[in-house]
Amino acid sequence: MDKNEEKQREEEREQVVSPWEVSSSGKIDYDKLIDKFGCQRLDQSLVDRVQRLTGRPPHVFLRRGVFFAHRDLNDILDAYEKGEKFYLYTGRGPSSEALHLGHLVPFMFTKYLQDAFKVPLVIQLTDDEKCMWKNLSVEESQRLARENAKDIIACGFDVTKTFIFSDFDYVGGAFYKNMVKVAKCVTYNKVVGIFGFTGEDHIGKVSFPPVQAVPSFPSSFPHLFSGKDHLRCLIPCAIDQDPYFRMTRDVAPRIGYHKPALIESSFFPALQGETGKMSASDPNSAIYVTDSAKAIKNKINKYAFSGGQESVELHRKLGANLEVLEVLFLQIFTLFI
Amino acid sequence: MDKNEEKQREEEREQVVSPWEVSSSGKIDYDKLIDKFGCQRLDQSLVDRVQRLTGRPPHVFLRRGVFFAHRDLNDILDAYEKGEKFYLYTGRGPSSEALHLGHLVPFMFTKYLQDAFKVPLVIQLTDDEKCMWKNLSVEESQRLARENAKDIIACGFDVTKTFIFSDFDYVGGAFYKNMVKVAKCVTYNKVVGIFGFTGEDHIGKVSFPPVQAVPSFPSSFPHLFSGKDHLRCLIPCAIDQDPYFRMTRDVAPRIGYHKPALIESSFFPALQGETGKMSASDPNSAIYVTDSAKAIKNKINKYAFSGGQESVELHRKLGANLEVLEVLFLQIFTLFI
Repeated sequence: MDKNEEKQREEEREQVVSPWEVSSSGKIDYDKLIDKFGCQRLDQSLVDRVQRLTGRPPHVFLRRGVFFAHRDLNDILDAYEKGEKFYLYTGRGPSSEALHLGHLVPFMFTKYLQDAFKVPLVIQLTDDEKCMWKNLSVEESQRLARENAKDIIACGFDVTKTFIFSDFDYVGGAFYKNMVKVAKCVTYNKVVGIFGFTGEDHIGKVSFPPVQAVPSFPSSFPHLFSGKDHLRCLIPCAIDQDPYFRMTRDVAPRIGYHKPALIESSFFPALQGETGKMSASDPNSAIYVTDSAKAIKNKINKYAFSGGQESVELHRKLGANLEVLEVLFLQIFTLFI
Repeated sequence: MDKNEEKQREEEREQVVSPWEVSSSGKIDYDKLIDKFGCQRLDQSLVDRVQRLTGRPPHVFLRRGVFFAHRDLNDILDAYEKGEKFYLYTGRGPSSEALHLGHLVPFMFTKYLQDAFKVPLVIQLTDDEKCMWKNLSVEESQRLARENAKDIIACGFDVTKTFIFSDFDYVGGAFYKNMVKVAKCVTYNKVVGIFGFTGEDHIGKVSFPPVQAVPSFPSSFPHLFSGKDHLRCLIPCAIDQDPYFRMTRDVAPRIGYHKPALIESSFFPALQGETGKMSASDPNSAIYVTDSAKAIKNKINKYAFSGGQESVELHRKLGANLEVLEVLFLQIFTLFI
């Protein structure tokens, strides 16, 4: 293989992972992503430590490596071991009527973390973000946020320890003050470097990163954490959200807060294969919580990459490939149904 | 005079007028500013029209041409003549402990407009802006906003028709929704064109223009103007604020609102001369409402450009130049003391 061919292969393997796009010409290379983003691999010793500290068997998403990367998880567990509590922060950009299986991953896992560590949780519905990125009206984004909140509530969070909010409703006051503090610490060149904005992008996009950053700081929620400015925050999310929190972690100590810790999942693959994630923008790539049994059957039969071999002969000879991620995920989800 | 000399003269006459800087090597050329910004000259027929419609003598700032430019003032007066009310919007960036004479100009004039037209008024204290531009802490900016509010209240607005708010307190809800709507309509390149931001400016600056834009839309104040989305807005301000409202007027019809009308004043000159404006950033350029009589006397004796000639001989021969703007302004202000 000459150099040109090598280069071509390299380009074919190129993957794009940003908060707005996940695509790859081949299987997504998560090791490469860990290197590129600079986060840490979540190894067995950490899984064992979670089990030891909580006295519960680790969640199936931990055992099976669905959550595979982290930032400072050890630090937050050190503090927890010394009796220091933390809070959880996760979120959802309401871009579709209902949640699909991929959306459920962080919420199901966050419910487990809340139960295991007995900690409070804030859930941000970024209706402002979707209004700006998806060109939805303010009213439609808010409606989707409300619909999505119902699906999220159905995951069974502890109602006495959970605060779900929409940005359009909640931004302001202490939350807005923290947004301004963050915004002052981040130059335009910096957000271009992190998010790849261009001059033709509208300023709403440039303004948004501080909105997703500040739920990491307890003072953004005075009615929940008044006087607890040093409460630590753990964020369970898919790894495509890492850019927001790299920025947040960079700013946090400059404005007097702990860096939030992260625990990051791989993507729930599209039905069609492992090169993209299940996406609300492509209904045929996704199974929604509102799909009927018949609709799910149709989608799987029609669109799903099943793990079957390329021809009937090969399939007879080799059998199905059960390591295919979709199969694995669907197996996992059947545990919860 | 050869071409080079001509060019040099031209450069010497160059003036910078932006929301953050007002400077000029010579006298500020307001005609040039009207051409550059694309606003309209406020002529005698408009002053007469205001007098006719309100049944009051025009304010001294109108008679003396302190308010010298406008945008769509005729349109708002047409609507008023047909029985359609409007509301007033003005504001203050709290960058100093107390207001100085220059800051009083829009407030004194706005009080006259409120009395003459009997209309409601919103006053925005942009403590968020000053926190970001002046590198003040959130807390200090809020404190200055509160101090400034006292000076503003002392101008004597109708308490039943006036709403004064700080951005740190009030941004959120309906106000934030309008901010997002505006932000979606403005590209980064556009704000660079209007405000001259660079890549090294922090994203708080890029995010701010929608905050100053949206008080122009009645739906940003649901507790005042509920159901009156088509209420017109008139903004009295100094002409350096024109860039914000050029942007606002561009966006307004795209999101279903009237363009705000503007009535714009010249700058209150620095004590030192006509090439800059009285500025809170330079205490020796300004007379504050909190200055004692003795302090004012000292400042004028020590720093003020008095209209006197360059030498005693010349002064004896020509006398003082009473057309100098400072003298004019101080004469005007003595009418109110």
